[in-house]
Amino acid sequence: MIDKKLVSRFLIRPGSRASLHRRDPGWEEINTKATSKKDLKEKAQAALSESLEDLRREQDVLWAADQYSLLIVLQAMDAAGKDGMIKHVMSGVNPQGCEVRSFKQPSSEELDHTFLWRTMKAAPERGKICIFNRSHYEDVLVVRVHPELLGKTGLPADKISKRIWDERFDDIKTYERHLARNGTKILKFFLHISKEEQKKRFLDRLNDPSKHWKFSAADVAERKHWEAYQAAYEQMLSATSTSYAPWYVIPSDSKWVARALVAEIVARTIADLKLTYPKVDKTKRKELDAARRALEREA
Amino acid sequence: MIDKKLVSRFLIRPGSRASLHRRDPGWEEINTKATSKKDLKEKAQAALSESLEDLRREQDVLWAADQYSLLIVLQAMDAAGKDGMIKHVMSGVNPQGCEVRSFKQPSSEELDHTFLWRTMKAAPERGKICIFNRSHYEDVLVVRVHPELLGKTGLPADKISKRIWDERFDDIKTYERHLARNGTKILKFFLHISKEEQKKRFLDRLNDPSKHWKFSAADVAERKHWEAYQAAYEQMLSATSTSYAPWYVIPSDSKWVARALVAEIVARTIADLKLTYPKVDKTKRKELDAARRALEREA
Repeated sequence: MIDKKLVSRFLIRPGSRASLHRRDPGWEEINTKATSKKDLKEKAQAALSESLEDLRREQDVLWAADQYSLLIVLQAMDAAGKDGMIKHVMSGVNPQGCEVRSFKQPSSEELDHTFLWRTMKAAPERGKICIFNRSHYEDVLVVRVHPELLGKTGLPADKISKRIWDERFDDIKTYERHLARNGTKILKFFLHISKEEQKKRFLDRLNDPSKHWKFSAADVAERKHWEAYQAAYEQMLSATSTSYAPWYVIPSDSKWVARALVAEIVARTIADLKLTYPKVDKTKRKELDAARRALEREA
Repeated sequence: MIDKKLVSRFLIRPGSRASLHRRDPGWEEINTKATSKKDLKEKAQAALSESLEDLRREQDVLWAADQYSLLIVLQAMDAAGKDGMIKHVMSGVNPQGCEVRSFKQPSSEELDHTFLWRTMKAAPERGKICIFNRSHYEDVLVVRVHPELLGKTGLPADKISKRIWDERFDDIKTYERHLARNGTKILKFFLHISKEEQKKRFLDRLNDPSKHWKFSAADVAERKHWEAYQAAYEQMLSATSTSYAPWYVIPSDSKWVARALVAEIVARTIADLKLTYPKVDKTKRKELDAARRALEREA
């Protein structure tokens, strides 16, 4: 069981600055009780297994209660572990109550709508967990780092002003507030890795021919914008972490630590809703009694 | 490993009659090597674990190859085990490559379109597994048993003729052929249970207060149409099992036998596609080499 106080260290408190440069993506500081990297991995895996059991139980009651839904937003630099996070934290959860939406480069139909449209359409059904692998936040991250993309969206020129990023933060917050007001719990995770760790992971992939098919050389080129991305993340995290849709900055240089933390936060968030299985009222109880008698009377 | 010949016994050969009344929903006949019900359950669970490992491996290459998708249609009488099937066969599969669509009573928007529209919209993306929990087949099953539902669809009166079921079978087959022609593998499973087993499962649920919330007395009332449903299934299975979208009638009085059989058929179907991870061509290899050198040159 991961300590509740420890988890709260990764929360960006609403209204405060994210101060990414002071947040350690590494593992050393997190669990000083671990005696080695191997020891930490084992401890993290054990914590993960425990949280996953809780998560399975909590998902069942979320689904049964059919009142709340849970939206999980994952954002990160390349190779930070988004896909592995989904695989390891969400496998084992009943797939009937869980869906994953991956947002890639917008299609021309998507560009013909507002930047929130495609994620609005994908909002989770009541009772379900929905994971956004990237999200509407791409429009204040990659688009901010590459502002020429804005010109390709078809936006009227007078809508592209200096205020656009603040306007987008505002639109995102009021949209997320709308979701929250209507029963969608929202959790947002930034998987925080160091530039060194990304380099290491890229080289691992480049040195493993079985991984070449899914590697794009453009990902390496994008590293020259590293500082611009960190600045965009800093602004975005500081502006859009709210009480109803908080951001967590998850130290992700160790994949197992990151997975254990996310699983724990997700399981605890559903548990905190204190949901119960639906109650059966008198009328329904009578119907069920009648049904039982009818069945027993059958030849 | 379940014997390939055994599996083929559950296939409805295209053009042949389903002969449901001659297909045993029970377990006795299937595995004569089992010495008891408990023994059979253990054997089935072991077979299931083995098939699930295959399935996870096969899903990964299906996803990577990004050429084929897999559509799994589940149909059955109430309490035959559709939800448990999804939970036990598809948990553990990477949720990023798998989605479940449940089709309930059609909405008014859905009724304003053809009966295939809502399932067409939900067709799987390339590389993914998609499970239909109920499907377009409801429109030749529950609607056939309760023809008054046809009147409520808004269909023009002259479109409701004696030929309507044959027309629907035809439309379904040509639509499924279209999917198959464009890279969607289709597997259809009818979970076959006996009327006695359904009664037993209903009584189990009625005798367990923790399950009352999800039980509807209407399900028991629907038993008086049992024979009409079996006749509708018989017609449907006989008419719509094709080489490109075959029906399997899965004996489901034992849940574990049913799960083991479905997992095996799904895993084997993907394996038979003989997919491979994408090859990297010369141009891409050069790009990757340049990317590796650029990374290594970094300070």
